[in-house]
Amino acid sequence: MLAKVRTDALLVTHLPNIRYLCGFTGSAAALLLSEKHSIFFTDGRYTTQARQEVHGATVIVKRKSPVMAAAEWIKSNQMKLNQARRRSARSYLGIEADHLTVADHERLHSILPSSIRLRGTPGLVERARMVKDDAELAAMRTAASLGVELFESVIRNLHVGDKESEIAVALESAARKAGAEAMSFPSIIASGERSALPHARASSAPIAAGSFVVCDFGVILAGYCSDMTRTLYAGTPSAEARRVYQAVLAAQQAAVEAVRAGVSTGQIDRVARSSLRREGLAKYFTHSTGHGVGLEIHEAPRLAAAQTEVLKPGMVVTIEPGVYLPGRWGVRIEDTVVVTENGCEVLTPATRELIAV
Amino acid sequence: MLAKVRTDALLVTHLPNIRYLCGFTGSAAALLLSEKHSIFFTDGRYTTQARQEVHGATVIVKRKSPVMAAAEWIKSNQMKLNQARRRSARSYLGIEADHLTVADHERLHSILPSSIRLRGTPGLVERARMVKDDAELAAMRTAASLGVELFESVIRNLHVGDKESEIAVALESAARKAGAEAMSFPSIIASGERSALPHARASSAPIAAGSFVVCDFGVILAGYCSDMTRTLYAGTPSAEARRVYQAVLAAQQAAVEAVRAGVSTGQIDRVARSSLRREGLAKYFTHSTGHGVGLEIHEAPRLAAAQTEVLKPGMVVTIEPGVYLPGRWGVRIEDTVVVTENGCEVLTPATRELIAV
Repeated sequence: MLAKVRTDALLVTHLPNIRYLCGFTGSAAALLLSEKHSIFFTDGRYTTQARQEVHGATVIVKRKSPVMAAAEWIKSNQMKLNQARRRSARSYLGIEADHLTVADHERLHSILPSSIRLRGTPGLVERARMVKDDAELAAMRTAASLGVELFESVIRNLHVGDKESEIAVALESAARKAGAEAMSFPSIIASGERSALPHARASSAPIAAGSFVVCDFGVILAGYCSDMTRTLYAGTPSAEARRVYQAVLAAQQAAVEAVRAGVSTGQIDRVARSSLRREGLAKYFTHSTGHGVGLEIHEAPRLAAAQTEVLKPGMVVTIEPGVYLPGRWGVRIEDTVVVTENGCEVLTPATRELIAV
Repeated sequence: MLAKVRTDALLVTHLPNIRYLCGFTGSAAALLLSEKHSIFFTDGRYTTQARQEVHGATVIVKRKSPVMAAAEWIKSNQMKLNQARRRSARSYLGIEADHLTVADHERLHSILPSSIRLRGTPGLVERARMVKDDAELAAMRTAASLGVELFESVIRNLHVGDKESEIAVALESAARKAGAEAMSFPSIIASGERSALPHARASSAPIAAGSFVVCDFGVILAGYCSDMTRTLYAGTPSAEARRVYQAVLAAQQAAVEAVRAGVSTGQIDRVARSSLRREGLAKYFTHSTGHGVGLEIHEAPRLAAAQTEVLKPGMVVTIEPGVYLPGRWGVRIEDTVVVTENGCEVLTPATRELIAV
């Protein structure tokens, strides 16, 4: 992996990447990987936790930031770092440029000898994380199943007059009681005009009759995120509301059906967008069709226009087209699916028919 | 402010800093400030929310990352940027090096004309945030009061045999029902040996008799974080346990009493550490004495050895010494206080006497 990105060692600083590679779940860590070494750095708060959790790496605890501890280790072990490239006096340390801050980069630069150059390795660990192994898929199925249970037990039972925030609280309480470590993101329960805001949080407004209610939520279980959206209707939907709902559902189903190994992520986005275009609604679909999900709620790949990443078996992605009529209402339907050779496995098989409450 | 750091404009990218300066609470934003301009950039998901929330800045919505949108705006408005320094052909754009990623820095560099130099402005907005104004203090009092209520209604009622995670869930459910947006951080309910881990999360272990229970939690209310810790005892504490508890309490109270405007943060840390040293326990106090709290759970200033920042009226800091005997147990007592001219106002006045449950 390191040879491919022409570095002698890689300094991993993005916490989800560190968790993926060595199992550590705390908030202060750096992981240094080379052909010869796998060294984990943390601070004194995590001495015991690191020894319990970290596998496949030597644990070093220092009273300083883990990035600086790693830099000082490299400085005093420089000969070992460039063993892989004996012919060159110069060696390369890979960094995660999408995560490392400019200030830490400058500190690294000032500590390391000038013979060590820093080199960005964009998405190196993220690319490995895109394809989930069997244990990860099992964890994601369990998390998604809890999401579906919460939909059935909480969301389906919402009533006109309930405050959005009450539903979010009920959802989160039930999730935590069922073992979730946290929600994947602040739950979206958005009714009335607020359903037209793709990223509305639950507010203190009560759910009014005559309104869509967008419910988008996820749980984190054993580190892995679930993600699903269903849109309910409070009251009796008009013909127009039904038409828009059916158009979003058709786009979502067309995109789900298009998912299989070998298809590009951009193509999935095109399928959803074309379906809405036929209904004259494409201009109201103002975000991308989906995203990878795993240890993070948003991770690679992106399912958006012009994306060229090709789907592979074991990738887990969301399919979530939506239509938002500003100042009026919005509809979004989202499933999380695992890519397979011939199609996909839907992890969130709750009903997609329009539920009126 | 900009003249002081010798920049013509500042690109704010750290979300809590953006919220502080213009009120936006979403997850994609950049704020460009100069003598003449105050421009807020976001993406299409936040069009409506930005118009509702952002004050004191012009809102620009683009279908690209807000940092890139800001860079392109600067490029096409370069003349305006350096009006403040007409004598020089070169102008300086301040960046938040502690937050901006190396990758975004490189993208900025590639988009901006070579006459614009990037310059780090360490802690510029964070320094302004250290001293809270009256509205912020009111918000922090309300958040801290909710924390105290939750201590009284949930923590004080914990029982031997309760799972740590059950208590954390009860705490979080009560917090959300009382209006909290979220917890400030994953609640720590740590009993038995786990009480010796300063950053333990609540686990599925039941609380056993004959054990300290460290309870460290906070709520976020109207954006502002509360933070408090109390340590209870399950069963009847031994003479040794009582002695250690009293030593931590004495250190904590000595440090609280030392807080006043004009005293350095390092001095507060020394007071707590000296108090524990007299009891032979300083070596088991393995973290710093406290930290600033506000829109973020950890913010400036730090109350730690060798810190020279001087306390000012309106700063809000935690005072939280602890003693951790590895493999045995730990004790931590934490209050959040507002610095005043002559002392401090304790925002978390729940009892500090040892409660046996």
